[in-house]
Amino acid sequence: MHASTTLSLGAVESRLSELLERYRDIRAATLKLCEGLSAEDCALQSMPDTSPAKWHLAHASWFVETFVLEPHAPGYRAFDPHFRALYNSYYVQVGERHPRPERGLISRPSLEQVRAYRAHVDAAIERWAAACRADTALLDLFELGLHHEQQHQELIVTDLKHLFSRNPLHPVYRARDAPAATAAPPLEWVAFPPGVREIGHRGADFCFDNELPRHRVYLDAFELASRLTTNAEYLAFIEEGGYRRPELWLSDGWDTCLAQRWDAPLYWQREGERRRVFTLRGLVDLDPAEPVGHLSYYEADAYARWAGARLATEAEWETAAEAALPAGNFVESGRLHPSPAIGSGGLRQLFGDLWEWTASAYLGYPGYRSAAGAVGEYNGKFMVNQFVLRGGSCATPRSHIRASYRNFFPPAARWQFTGIRLAR
Amino acid sequence: MHASTTLSLGAVESRLSELLERYRDIRAATLKLCEGLSAEDCALQSMPDTSPAKWHLAHASWFVETFVLEPHAPGYRAFDPHFRALYNSYYVQVGERHPRPERGLISRPSLEQVRAYRAHVDAAIERWAAACRADTALLDLFELGLHHEQQHQELIVTDLKHLFSRNPLHPVYRARDAPAATAAPPLEWVAFPPGVREIGHRGADFCFDNELPRHRVYLDAFELASRLTTNAEYLAFIEEGGYRRPELWLSDGWDTCLAQRWDAPLYWQREGERRRVFTLRGLVDLDPAEPVGHLSYYEADAYARWAGARLATEAEWETAAEAALPAGNFVESGRLHPSPAIGSGGLRQLFGDLWEWTASAYLGYPGYRSAAGAVGEYNGKFMVNQFVLRGGSCATPRSHIRASYRNFFPPAARWQFTGIRLAR
Amino acid sequence: MHASTTLSLGAVESRLSELLERYRDIRAATLKLCEGLSAEDCALQSMPDTSPAKWHLAHASWFVETFVLEPHAPGYRAFDPHFRALYNSYYVQVGERHPRPERGLISRPSLEQVRAYRAHVDAAIERWAAACRADTALLDLFELGLHHEQQHQELIVTDLKHLFSRNPLHPVYRARDAPAATAAPPLEWVAFPPGVREIGHRGADFCFDNELPRHRVYLDAFELASRLTTNAEYLAFIEEGGYRRPELWLSDGWDTCLAQRWDAPLYWQREGERRRVFTLRGLVDLDPAEPVGHLSYYEADAYARWAGARLATEAEWETAAEAALPAGNFVESGRLHPSPAIGSGGLRQLFGDLWEWTASAYLGYPGYRSAAGAVGEYNGKFMVNQFVLRGGSCATPRSHIRASYRNFFPPAARWQFTGIRLAR
Amino acid sequence: MHASTTLSLGAVESRLSELLERYRDIRAATLKLCEGLSAEDCALQSMPDTSPAKWHLAHASWFVETFVLEPHAPGYRAFDPHFRALYNSYYVQVGERHPRPERGLISRPSLEQVRAYRAHVDAAIERWAAACRADTALLDLFELGLHHEQQHQELIVTDLKHLFSRNPLHPVYRARDAPAATAAPPLEWVAFPPGVREIGHRGADFCFDNELPRHRVYLDAFELASRLTTNAEYLAFIEEGGYRRPELWLSDGWDTCLAQRWDAPLYWQREGERRRVFTLRGLVDLDPAEPVGHLSYYEADAYARWAGARLATEAEWETAAEAALPAGNFVESGRLHPSPAIGSGGLRQLFGDLWEWTASAYLGYPGYRSAAGAVGEYNGKFMVNQFVLRGGSCATPRSHIRASYRNFFPPAARWQFTGIRLAR
Repeated sequence: MHASTTLSLGAVESRLSELLERYRDIRAATLKLCEGLSAEDCALQSMPDTSPAKWHLAHASWFVETFVLEPHAPGYRAFDPHFRALYNSYYVQVGERHPRPERGLISRPSLEQVRAYRAHVDAAIERWAAACRADTALLDLFELGLHHEQQHQELIVTDLKHLFSRNPLHPVYRARDAPAATAAPPLEWVAFPPGVREIGHRGADFCFDNELPRHRVYLDAFELASRLTTNAEYLAFIEEGGYRRPELWLSDGWDTCLAQRWDAPLYWQREGERRRVFTLRGLVDLDPAEPVGHLSYYEADAYARWAGARLATEAEWETAAEAALPAGNFVESGRLHPSPAIGSGGLRQLFGDLWEWTASAYLGYPGYRSAAGAVGEYNGKFMVNQFVLRGGSCATPRSHIRASYRNFFPPAARWQFTGIRLAR
Repeated sequence: MHASTTLSLGAVESRLSELLERYRDIRAATLKLCEGLSAEDCALQSMPDTSPAKWHLAHASWFVETFVLEPHAPGYRAFDPHFRALYNSYYVQVGERHPRPERGLISRPSLEQVRAYRAHVDAAIERWAAACRADTALLDLFELGLHHEQQHQELIVTDLKHLFSRNPLHPVYRARDAPAATAAPPLEWVAFPPGVREIGHRGADFCFDNELPRHRVYLDAFELASRLTTNAEYLAFIEEGGYRRPELWLSDGWDTCLAQRWDAPLYWQREGERRRVFTLRGLVDLDPAEPVGHLSYYEADAYARWAGARLATEAEWETAAEAALPAGNFVESGRLHPSPAIGSGGLRQLFGDLWEWTASAYLGYPGYRSAAGAVGEYNGKFMVNQFVLRGGSCATPRSHIRASYRNFFPPAARWQFTGIRLAR
Repeated sequence: MHASTTLSLGAVESRLSELLERYRDIRAATLKLCEGLSAEDCALQSMPDTSPAKWHLAHASWFVETFVLEPHAPGYRAFDPHFRALYNSYYVQVGERHPRPERGLISRPSLEQVRAYRAHVDAAIERWAAACRADTALLDLFELGLHHEQQHQELIVTDLKHLFSRNPLHPVYRARDAPAATAAPPLEWVAFPPGVREIGHRGADFCFDNELPRHRVYLDAFELASRLTTNAEYLAFIEEGGYRRPELWLSDGWDTCLAQRWDAPLYWQREGERRRVFTLRGLVDLDPAEPVGHLSYYEADAYARWAGARLATEAEWETAAEAALPAGNFVESGRLHPSPAIGSGGLRQLFGDLWEWTASAYLGYPGYRSAAGAVGEYNGKFMVNQFVLRGGSCATPRSHIRASYRNFFPPAARWQFTGIRLAR
Repeated sequence: MHASTTLSLGAVESRLSELLERYRDIRAATLKLCEGLSAEDCALQSMPDTSPAKWHLAHASWFVETFVLEPHAPGYRAFDPHFRALYNSYYVQVGERHPRPERGLISRPSLEQVRAYRAHVDAAIERWAAACRADTALLDLFELGLHHEQQHQELIVTDLKHLFSRNPLHPVYRARDAPAATAAPPLEWVAFPPGVREIGHRGADFCFDNELPRHRVYLDAFELASRLTTNAEYLAFIEEGGYRRPELWLSDGWDTCLAQRWDAPLYWQREGERRRVFTLRGLVDLDPAEPVGHLSYYEADAYARWAGARLATEAEWETAAEAALPAGNFVESGRLHPSPAIGSGGLRQLFGDLWEWTASAYLGYPGYRSAAGAVGEYNGKFMVNQFVLRGGSCATPRSHIRASYRNFFPPAARWQFTGIRLAR
């Protein structure tokens, strides 16, 4: 969220109108992701880290209800006062919260009622916008709600994939033909000179508070791999004992590997000699040219060490990405799966396909301050025990990502669309 | 399961015809229990001990499919070969089993598909019966399937109650008016003389293998309470520090009480000074005259000690119950909740209302042998770390219960309809 | 503890004098068990179920201090008031208790100080006895203290064996030559007729409260194996897949077997093709003729099922043992290991060698009442989730055991000297 | 470890001679720390994070035996070949390791034997040095062993403090009079200008591999508090609800706070209104002027947020400390407890007293490479889920610390001598 500035009334109206348009599109896109899903599909929770799709549908509405409508829409009546606690994710300053691991115990409200809740909030937003006396701070909050809903769009996809992966019948979310076989271009190294750089969001467009302030960093010379690591490359790591050689791993990573009995990325399976992988179009043969995905930081780090390289820091990544066009394989492609890199020259797959684990722990930038009040809990309180990921994935909305965007997950997390870009 | 005997063909046909009639009734009764439940209600699992209603619907079909249709119905085609593992509860000799704690991760097959599975099995049973060359052993297996389904009827009710209890919105399963207030009759003691008795099932009717063989036991003189312990009586135990006095408890019980932070039966709640209780008709005021329910063995045992009494052994209970009429408040009453005792003289509430914890560990009777093959896993392998309960509950089908019936649960279990009858 | 009766002063004096003599012997025997142990050996705790030898030394003194000296020895001054909580095992009515799993965190008081504590208590007991105005109830308590100390003698041995077994250097407690090789006599069956029997302690001698009251039971005809199951017999069970065939196991047992990765009794090891076993004289070759020991109830039960037999009930065992002489391989033999059976005819190894798991859950006898006050916590509160063992072991003092003696452990416990006698 | 360079033979001899002198001093200092400790004190382990003193004594010898004597001292005979696994801490490339949580299960070898092991290694080192054909790489390894032993000196102190703290009798390690009461000087802020700085070890003296390479960083302007945070200041945080206000905490920190029921630093106790604190001279009154110690990163971070400040990054800290003299309250003072700050002007307590939590996650510096072989496991594999601490403590040897020294612990660790210096 960028700092609030004073705008003329006309400018406020015009920005509100533009935001409202995007609000409608984003809300519709969320529902579109749930097409073809049954109420049952939307109600289950496969582990404490994930949430039912129904919960995401409700929580995204809760966010704008709680931070926009309740304090700022005179006369707004809550759809159901129980939802204030039921759909509060982690905002302790808002009040009670239904425990996260129990989100899969809620059969009622039904999916239909949650859709009605969404319609109720949408109607209230339209009324609020029509009568709006918003200032820029309030518009910032509203815009935050839009980006927040986009984050949950990605989580609907990743959480559903995890749920379906636990079903021995391998349900299909979106049937698709197998893409034509391709070969990945050779991995090349792109070099960057040393010097003082600036990273962090710049400009007046929206960003999350954790992308601020823009600040200087000193970078030594470095090189980045021209594309993501492929399944074929990762298979070589496995075949050379990658999952059996503790000297390649961080100590915590090796303990996790043993405890979880990892011997391949999440969603890989073996059928005799054949490698198969669970995807949102079902169980398919592993394509060697595709980027390897659903890895923990520990695996990404071990692979990099095995390959004689390392992961990039987030400052290196952002410096490289700032000049690039944020184009790529996003959720709008409908593939919901990473695609092989194409062509040669320069950095490819920086955006989309897979989130790239960086070697940077998720911490506040120098001078970082979280927003005041409950909304300040959005990012800041998670700045420990997590690593930064960059660039978005095949489940990220195209309009959601940018070079300064900082995603973060604990180093053992594997259910997100995560991959590897080497650095050295 | 009683021992197989040779019957004439006519007798077989007549028994089959009678069983088929009951099969249809029981299968219909199961579906009736699910009326008013959404697919979401039927898909969720609230703890590893419970199962989704959809799972019960499928597993009861799986049982007759696996033990009757597959081996004995020539040409039978499985509805879906994946179901063999997916709906196998715990029969290791049948093969793979989907892990019990993950029954709530299965959104597909949908509830509708599971209903189709039931219809498929029902049609196959009709065909099998029409063409039947059954012997008594096979009819015994078929009859076992009927009683098995009735057990799962009760579990549908208890598991749903647990699921709904975890929902902060307190869903209602069956709306009902509050029953008229009554008072419980005074507790009296009914005396029995000492001597050698026989317990265990007798006669040719169906029973489970754990009710056999009928055998002799020596009983000292004893007395049984004329009715179940009431909420009012249990409240006195609480108010006199029942949950704060370790000297009243078994050591494991006290550890459990502390670890689980018990201070009242499951489903009791406080609203200020008011005691409320979660029921299948919603959250209601506690009725002092009703039998106290949803207690662990540990609580029943501690209460009995506090009351200067003890729990009955199963041999005492059966000796007393053998003469009684198995009438009472069963699932057919539609109350789904225990009712206050009525009238005076003799033993009341022996059957229905609440399962009565006995002081008997669940072990095989002298000479007990489990059936050969996978179906022998039905009861015998659970004969450790559990206690016997007797008499059925308000969620038990009337035709399912009898004096020799042995139910069993671990001493910490509270989600079944369990209660206390004192002995001394 | 038997019921108190009125004795003449002379009779009291004579009983006290006899108890005092035994007290001195038993206290000396405890110290003798610790000969050769370092302060380090005596301070460590290898799991929550076991205790350091130093703790046993102190707790046995605490028992007589707490139940005899403090209430009944005028002017008695505690050695250290902190010991009241520090060495209280589980008597909640005495007050605070140091947590059991933390007994291995106490380096101070030192072993030397604990020995001084013992001397302090011993001197006080002598003074109390010299001036004694005891009644029989108090003498009963004192006698209970003697038997209590004997129980802890056995635990010193079993807990030390467990501790040493966790040391990769295989320490030796008592060096001994290997016994001469023998062969076990063939297993025969000894038959008993049906009828009403009496079990439970009879006579005026000491017994624990859980051996009372003597009462009638009805027994069907049964047979007992003439000796304990041998290592050779148990090896056949292992070789025929005993640890890989769930159908042989109770369900909880199988879960435990998998979770603990059992594939042999506790203390068995493999060195290539060779079977070795850890004993108190070090790591030695497995002797096929010796009784198999350190088994859980689950393993004993699975073995019996595999062997086409079962375990005896405690009533069967006691009926058979009542006529037998309680002779056998006890702690006084110094072997601290079970010995092969010798000779033929009748039941051998009933007493000593190994505690025999029975098929009886540990519950109170009909009419059982625990003693009033804190000492009533001795046995009664453990009457759940445990099984009865009979007959004592090679670590039991000879004078401690009798036919009616009921030992009890949870079904997964393996560190006691436990074994198998088949019944059918 | 700095990069190896070629030295003349004379230079090697002179360096070896100097290292040998320090080796003798350091080895003697370790034993001096164990004076007054019994074998029991040295054998126990109070939690998996800590180790028995006996283990530290042995492991420090194991290190030089494994990395210096075995590969480089011709004819060296191991004291006991079992020790190779028994005292291997975490070097997977050396081979098997005795499990860390089981270090407290080893009563044999005795403390006396471990002292003999030390003497054996010391004698072998003297022989090796006398005959030495060392190159600088080997001397580097030997020097690493010296610093390694100093690290374990500090751990002997911190682990013993933790062990004694779990003993309800509050043992005293080193009796001392209470220091005279003082007042802490007011907290002032010392300012530093922005710019590109260099951090990391410089020069040819010893350092650990994680202090390298020296590299550039860009720092914004910042201020550091002139002294450590005091007990009085921390008490104000507690009294204003510091342990009850989740908005002050990181999310993981708050979860830990609730789960561990933290309401004060480790070792603080309440006796009615009085605050007491467990120290190595026993349980004493809390001195408001002393620096607050034994805090987790989570508490340090929450305190800083409450105080309107933050923790310093390690680059800020090192920049400030590089100019300072590494003087302070170290283990040589014998106080083994932090002392109140004295005087005014500039930064005090940078070295000694308490390790200062920084806001920096423990990661490799740009261009970091761990050493080849097993010794490369020393630091690098722990670079995840930990935070950097700087400056040493009252348990650190004076010669062990320097401005570039990077200590690291997980954010929930509290048993080290850790404290807070604010930054902004």
